[in-house]
Amino acid sequence: MKSTAMLETYPATLTLDRSLIAAAIDALAECAQACTACADACLSEDMVAELRTCIRTNLDCADSCTATERILSRHTGDDANVTRAHLEACLTACRTCADECEAHAGMHEHCRVCAEACRACEAACTAVLDAIR
Amino acid sequence: MKSTAMLETYPATLTLDRSLIAAAIDALAECAQACTACADACLSEDMVAELRTCIRTNLDCADSCTATERILSRHTGDDANVTRAHLEACLTACRTCADECEAHAGMHEHCRVCAEACRACEAACTAVLDAIR
Amino acid sequence: MKSTAMLETYPATLTLDRSLIAAAIDALAECAQACTACADACLSEDMVAELRTCIRTNLDCADSCTATERILSRHTGDDANVTRAHLEACLTACRTCADECEAHAGMHEHCRVCAEACRACEAACTAVLDAIR
Amino acid sequence: MKSTAMLETYPATLTLDRSLIAAAIDALAECAQACTACADACLSEDMVAELRTCIRTNLDCADSCTATERILSRHTGDDANVTRAHLEACLTACRTCADECEAHAGMHEHCRVCAEACRACEAACTAVLDAIR
Repeated sequence: MKSTAMLETYPATLTLDRSLIAAAIDALAECAQACTACADACLSEDMVAELRTCIRTNLDCADSCTATERILSRHTGDDANVTRAHLEACLTACRTCADECEAHAGMHEHCRVCAEACRACEAACTAVLDAIR
Repeated sequence: MKSTAMLETYPATLTLDRSLIAAAIDALAECAQACTACADACLSEDMVAELRTCIRTNLDCADSCTATERILSRHTGDDANVTRAHLEACLTACRTCADECEAHAGMHEHCRVCAEACRACEAACTAVLDAIR
Repeated sequence: MKSTAMLETYPATLTLDRSLIAAAIDALAECAQACTACADACLSEDMVAELRTCIRTNLDCADSCTATERILSRHTGDDANVTRAHLEACLTACRTCADECEAHAGMHEHCRVCAEACRACEAACTAVLDAIR
Repeated sequence: MKSTAMLETYPATLTLDRSLIAAAIDALAECAQACTACADACLSEDMVAELRTCIRTNLDCADSCTATERILSRHTGDDANVTRAHLEACLTACRTCADECEAHAGMHEHCRVCAEACRACEAACTAVLDAIR
C-alpha cells in the first residue's frame, strides 16, 4: 500500500497523525479484502447452510471498510463528525464480523485469518477515533 | 427500483417494516447517484476552487450511501447494532452534504437538486432508525 | 432517481444523449440493488447449497453495476475508451447473472425479478455503447 | 494484505495461479487507495482548475479497481468471461490514469506516486489476463 507515501505528498495541512491514518487505511483495505474472500470461501464450504450469518456479516464488513477507507483517504475540508461516525460504524461491523468468524475459526482457516484482519481493523479504527475525540 | 419487489420475495422473516426499508433503499440509491453527479458538476464549474469542500463532502456521502444501501438490502442474520451504526453514520454524511450543498443552491442548480436528495435520504434513514431503536 | 435532473444541471457540454445516459444510470442502480438483494435472498433459501454460483454471480454483477453507474455519472474529461470498456464488462456481468437467475426463475421469485433487472441493464448499457462506438 | 493467506485457505479448487491472483489483488487495492488519495490531493492544490481531468480519471480508476479486486477475490463458480472483461476494463482505467498522472508527475509528487501504482496495477491485471486467455 502507498498510503504513507500518499499522505506525505498531500499538499495542505493534515490535522491528524499521519502514521495513525496510514495504519487505519491499510487495516481497512486488508479487512475489506479478507471479508470478501471469507464470504466466498464460506460459500464454497459443504456446510454453507450453517455459514449464512457469517457470509452476511462478511459482506457488510467489506462494504463498511471500503467506504471508511475512502473517507479516511480524503483530507480536503475534513469534517470530524463525518469521520467519527463512520469509524464508529465500521468498528461495529468489524467487531461483529470478528465475533462471528472466531466462532468458526477452529473449523475454517479462512474464518481464523479473517477474524485476525477484523480485530486488527477494529483496533486501528479505535486508535484514530481516540485521536479525534 | 425493484426494492419493494425484492423485499416481497425474500424467503425468510423480516423484522422491519418493508415499506420503510424500501423507501430508505430508494433514497440511498438516489442520494449516492446525485452526490456522485454533483461532485462531477462542481468539478466542471469555473469556480471549482471554491467548491473543494462541496466535492469532498459529495464523495464521502456517495460512499456512505452505497455501503448503507447494500447493508439495508440484506436481511439474513440481521444485526440491529450494525444496521443502526451505519444508518447513524449515513445520516451524518447526508446532513453534512445537504448543509454544504444548500450553501450554493442559489448559485448552482446541481447543488440544489443534490441537497434535496440528501435531505430526503437523511429523513428516510431517520425513519428506519426510529423503527429499530 | 434524480439522474435526469442532475444531467440537466451539468455546467459543461455533454457529448452523449442525456436520455440514454439517464436510462442507463437508472438501470444500473436498479440492477445493483436487485443483485445485492437476490444474493441475500438466495442465502436464506433452504437449498442455498444449490445457489452458490447464483450468489457469486449476483455479487459480481452488483459490484460491476455500482462502478459503471459512477463512471456514467461523471462527464468531466470524458474518455470514451474507459466508458466503453466498463460498459462492455458490465453487460457481460449482467448477461451472465441474467442467464444464471433465469435458470431458477420458475422456483425463486427473487431470481425472476433480478433476471428482469439484469436484462434491462444489459439493454441499457448496450444502447449507450451503440451510441459511443 | 492477507490475500495470499485467504487464497491458501479457499476450500475448493482454484483454476488460476495463486501468486498471480494475490499479486493482482494487492496491486488493485493499492491502486484504488492511491487514486482516491490522489483525487483528494489534486483537489487541495492551488491549481485545481488544471487538474479536473486528473481528478475525474482518478475517481474512475478507484471505482474500477475496487470492483475488480472484489471479483478477483471470489472463486466460487468462476466465469472466465466475466473475469476477463473486468480485467480488460480495469487495465484501461489504470493506463488512462497513469498517462494522466505522469503528465503532472514532475510538478505533483502525489501524481508521481499514483502513476506508479497505476502502472503496477496495469501490469498485474495484464499478467492475470495472459494466464486466462
